[in-house]
Amino acid sequence: MPKVDMKEIKFPPRRNTRSVWVGRVEIGASAPISIQSMLSVPLTSLDSAIAQARALGEAGCDIIRVAVPDKRSVPFLREFRQAVDLPLVADIHFDYRLAIASAEAGVDKLRVNPGNIGSRDKVAAVAEAAASFNIPIRIGVNAGSLPPDLIERPDRAQAMLVAALREIEAVESTGFSNLVVSLKSHDVPTTILANRMFSRVSDIPLHLGVTEAGSVESGSIKNALGIGALILDGIGDTVRVSLTGDPIEEVTAARGILRACGRYSKGIEIISCPTCGRTKVDVASVVREIERRLRFCDKPLKVAVMGCEVNGPGEAREADIGFAGTADGFVVFERGKIRPPKIPSKDAIESIVAIVEEAASIIDNRKIEP
Amino acid sequence: MPKVDMKEIKFPPRRNTRSVWVGRVEIGASAPISIQSMLSVPLTSLDSAIAQARALGEAGCDIIRVAVPDKRSVPFLREFRQAVDLPLVADIHFDYRLAIASAEAGVDKLRVNPGNIGSRDKVAAVAEAAASFNIPIRIGVNAGSLPPDLIERPDRAQAMLVAALREIEAVESTGFSNLVVSLKSHDVPTTILANRMFSRVSDIPLHLGVTEAGSVESGSIKNALGIGALILDGIGDTVRVSLTGDPIEEVTAARGILRACGRYSKGIEIISCPTCGRTKVDVASVVREIERRLRFCDKPLKVAVMGCEVNGPGEAREADIGFAGTADGFVVFERGKIRPPKIPSKDAIESIVAIVEEAASIIDNRKIEP
Repeated sequence: MPKVDMKEIKFPPRRNTRSVWVGRVEIGASAPISIQSMLSVPLTSLDSAIAQARALGEAGCDIIRVAVPDKRSVPFLREFRQAVDLPLVADIHFDYRLAIASAEAGVDKLRVNPGNIGSRDKVAAVAEAAASFNIPIRIGVNAGSLPPDLIERPDRAQAMLVAALREIEAVESTGFSNLVVSLKSHDVPTTILANRMFSRVSDIPLHLGVTEAGSVESGSIKNALGIGALILDGIGDTVRVSLTGDPIEEVTAARGILRACGRYSKGIEIISCPTCGRTKVDVASVVREIERRLRFCDKPLKVAVMGCEVNGPGEAREADIGFAGTADGFVVFERGKIRPPKIPSKDAIESIVAIVEEAASIIDNRKIEP
Repeated sequence: MPKVDMKEIKFPPRRNTRSVWVGRVEIGASAPISIQSMLSVPLTSLDSAIAQARALGEAGCDIIRVAVPDKRSVPFLREFRQAVDLPLVADIHFDYRLAIASAEAGVDKLRVNPGNIGSRDKVAAVAEAAASFNIPIRIGVNAGSLPPDLIERPDRAQAMLVAALREIEAVESTGFSNLVVSLKSHDVPTTILANRMFSRVSDIPLHLGVTEAGSVESGSIKNALGIGALILDGIGDTVRVSLTGDPIEEVTAARGILRACGRYSKGIEIISCPTCGRTKVDVASVVREIERRLRFCDKPLKVAVMGCEVNGPGEAREADIGFAGTADGFVVFERGKIRPPKIPSKDAIESIVAIVEEAASIIDNRKIEP
């Protein structure tokens, strides 16, 4: 067997990046990795848009993006800005004048797509507006909408990199460097490679995401792998999970991904066994109910729900509080040790949720890892 | 800007491993990465167990594991073996005699846990039985149930590695080398590090998984990252996603993870936009219906469902067939080009599902990437 120094096998430290502020939220440097989402309702449905933004904020979204598709949306954006306290990003395609109008309307960041924003003059005009309002620009490269000379290149990741570097050069040549960049593809390996390449040549903070990823079920998988693999590599400063569905699901998934990377300690983490022929209780229902009822809890708490008391408490020794099924109910355990009394099968779910709520209520908020 | 050779930034090739056969399925060497799941119903509920095994096979599960918790289960295992054509693995804890009885009952692989199987003599007896039936053994290390002298070690990944190497040594010293190993933790970074370490010192095929991962929603995220990051590293020969829920969900998630890694071409891949203020149709419902109705389709087909016809067909140019919303229905596109006629809003979902089914029916099965 070869001699290997196992201490060498570890994850790299987080990459050093510039600090960029989006309203009150810092992106890059040593700031916590922030969570973004995007409204699925148009600004012109103003009340729904405001309600959705508030719901996203309560779910843990740090920064909200809104599409500004036309001039008609701009007055609505102005009203929306007054009503919503969260940092806002205007998503601009095709027409650079909408970026300028959005900056004037008070957004905290502009997102432009190098594939469709047009000439260097237009890019320079957007940079000038951003500079005068002291807001950053995200250069958002999508593999599916690259500039015409790059769209057919077979080396997708490199084509994305070139598109990003070209746009950065156009903006930075005006003296503007308050930038964030994203390189997204619907293909996970391409997304990872493009971001790894970019991180080797630039200190601009990276916004991570896998685009057009599909439904909540399959899209969560693609985003978890694409975003998570990069974060474990030390790459990525802010994330947006793209899912076809309620944007609240994007925030829930983003929290789950950051938590799986050890980069998010808020909220309940559930450790639960897959159940097997030994299981005597309905573990799945208990897990579902805890997740549903404590979805927006931001206290850091590890909860275990195990099917049997033989392996359960031992296997879930790292849990703050846990429950293991027996023939006639659940035993409660704390850090691997059983704590009487037992919970009878009748009303078990209610009792378990109450115990978790109590445990959450007394816990200190641990420091979020940067 | 530093000079970097971007061609250097790529994923490593798949690791060379021994070839191990589980019934008709090969694990390791250049075999496709196989998908495993585990029955959630006990063998003693024989009819339900058989029905669940068949449903798993239809969903794309290559190898099925069953818990054999006691002597009472063994005659049921024998009957189950006769009724189920898929390769079977017996999951054994504590009592090595159950492993021997399971081999005699005709299973295709044994899984033992070094944390609870006991002395070297017992391990040797299991290896002898496996050798006489010419079936492999999986040494399944779980971070939560390590041997007593390793369980408290703070370097979890290394403790798991030591547990695995110790058990391998005990088995291989008997002359038996028909092995698969797994190193699972509920913690994703620990799981990744333990497997990276193991792959540096051994050519035994790796069975990947993140254990006690939680519900379908949060557990899919942890498994996607843990399993997917390793596969992109070239590590891993067979996978089992652990979820608290219907095991069919484990198979669906495993397919999604392998597909996201470019390692699985069977089945429908949906590329769909997250929708935004520009969207005029109900993309989420269309995606959900396609996924639901074509869940078990094994034809390799990329389907795009995009919210608007402005960016949609271009961004989803890699799709075999696609649909982009307009104010009064959907346009159909093939590889980025629109193909008339348009689908009216009325009955759009039915029409779209029918078009996808037709496209699936005429496609050749592409070779699955090894």
